[in-house]
Amino acid sequence: MQELFGEIKSELKVVEEELRKVLQAPDPFITETATHLLNAGGKRLRPAFSLLGGRCGDYSFERVLPLAMALELIHMATLVHDDVVDSAVKRRGVDTVKARWGNKVSTHIGDYLFSKSLILVSRYEEPLISRVLAETSVKMCEGEMLQIVTCYDLNQTVKDYFYRIKRKTALLISASCQLGAAVCRAPSGVAESLRRYGYNLGMAFQITDDILDMVADQDLLGKPVGSDLRQGILTLPAIYALRHSPRRERLFKLISGREQSDGKIGEAIEIIKDCGGIVFAARVGQRFIARAKRALAALPAEPVKETLRLVADYIQTRRY
Amino acid sequence: MQELFGEIKSELKVVEEELRKVLQAPDPFITETATHLLNAGGKRLRPAFSLLGGRCGDYSFERVLPLAMALELIHMATLVHDDVVDSAVKRRGVDTVKARWGNKVSTHIGDYLFSKSLILVSRYEEPLISRVLAETSVKMCEGEMLQIVTCYDLNQTVKDYFYRIKRKTALLISASCQLGAAVCRAPSGVAESLRRYGYNLGMAFQITDDILDMVADQDLLGKPVGSDLRQGILTLPAIYALRHSPRRERLFKLISGREQSDGKIGEAIEIIKDCGGIVFAARVGQRFIARAKRALAALPAEPVKETLRLVADYIQTRRY
Repeated sequence: MQELFGEIKSELKVVEEELRKVLQAPDPFITETATHLLNAGGKRLRPAFSLLGGRCGDYSFERVLPLAMALELIHMATLVHDDVVDSAVKRRGVDTVKARWGNKVSTHIGDYLFSKSLILVSRYEEPLISRVLAETSVKMCEGEMLQIVTCYDLNQTVKDYFYRIKRKTALLISASCQLGAAVCRAPSGVAESLRRYGYNLGMAFQITDDILDMVADQDLLGKPVGSDLRQGILTLPAIYALRHSPRRERLFKLISGREQSDGKIGEAIEIIKDCGGIVFAARVGQRFIARAKRALAALPAEPVKETLRLVADYIQTRRY
Repeated sequence: MQELFGEIKSELKVVEEELRKVLQAPDPFITETATHLLNAGGKRLRPAFSLLGGRCGDYSFERVLPLAMALELIHMATLVHDDVVDSAVKRRGVDTVKARWGNKVSTHIGDYLFSKSLILVSRYEEPLISRVLAETSVKMCEGEMLQIVTCYDLNQTVKDYFYRIKRKTALLISASCQLGAAVCRAPSGVAESLRRYGYNLGMAFQITDDILDMVADQDLLGKPVGSDLRQGILTLPAIYALRHSPRRERLFKLISGREQSDGKIGEAIEIIKDCGGIVFAARVGQRFIARAKRALAALPAEPVKETLRLVADYIQTRRY
């Protein structure tokens, strides 16, 4: 199993190199801006999931490679576009494309990364691949729009939150697992199990992300703590606290007052922590992890199954 | 032939209705913003070209419809993203998505429109369709980036301009003609002729657009005259004048001074007109039109061929 991680690690290195190659543009400025986020690093989670998914079928790295690259490109495109609109300044610890080159460049570079993914996807003959990715992309946009619509909406429910993070995060991770299997011609039942695994894992991943945004070490996180609250994005711990905190009136006031100062944001996070908002969210995350693991039951007993289980545990315990 | 135009007109109405249907989203705000540009109208040139292209094959409206819709969605996505970055205020005579809802919404709605096109494209089994559209999308982004890179670049050549407008405009019109034929199983030679027709027509179309930006009636155009110059975008008439005007020193100064006032922009346009910049650009446009018509030579003599010739004439003579 350690061996499997080692294998994936070296394959991810190839994914990285190929991504760098594919982003070489006719104009040096396009190359520089397009590779900027790639150079900032990242976990390459989606490519990794596609490689793991592929191992549940008739594995061929060459078959998965274009998909793995496309998934990371789609993810990077959403990050770049996210930064345009949130006027975020830091991402993965370095300047965002937006901060360095402005909205103009970010919008087009996001489009460029996304379009590059389409060329890779068009290599596959199975219509499933492009169909699932197209539908996922539409839903991801819906998620982003809903994040705008629900900004500072103090009445949103846990269900609204689930609906939103499913679109924003879970569906692409889900597609990574499912399509990795599909391109390696895994039986459709296996691909379907992986889809469910990925979906539940993706939900847990976003919940953990949202928890870390409140409690993580700022240096590890690579961006300021409480950045969601600063933008009016209410995540699971906040939604919980707005219902259950004895100081919810104060929290209401802090959030609806659109406070931006470190002191006020810190106070809001304290209120959320004190009433058990973080603990609640972590528990919900654990439930999704458990469901992800259960989705693996239908898979044949192979080393990759155990790896997928370990990955699920890692998602929950990561610190950044 | 009039009959053919009538047929296309009624088919374009269906395209319009289907576009409206496909943009109905689970959230009313998404529907409103996504249909905003659709409601502003437009020439629907790309769908029309795909319908005409289709008629050079074994025509079926049902076969072309998803492509026609996808082409307009891709075009609309680029317009919405263009408006984000140019901070333009008017488009097709009404507020832009950017002006009404800001950069956040525009970026995501552009992505949404584009992703919707992918779902439509994924219906086709021919790998050519998605491959050509993916490659076209990449090149369109390159064109947009080059437009940023060459802003206020007084040394750019006519060749730079051609390279840029090919990507920005001509390739999507080219793909519209070519793929319309391809989805209707036209022989590859026919599709190739249409590709060349569309490319040359697209070049002429953008040149006319750039001329109109300087000379059109503001009310017909639906946006302020001289908006390219105001943004530092140097088009063919300006590039010509910077070489050939006896007052080119003054023009240099006006452009490099990044003048924004109506008076100064008006003065720059006068200099460009006086030295024959508009006439020169119009002549270059005519050359592309002639090439577009020559590309039709290889097509079988059918009514659609004559229509394509008339369309070429219209492109050159339009006033807005």
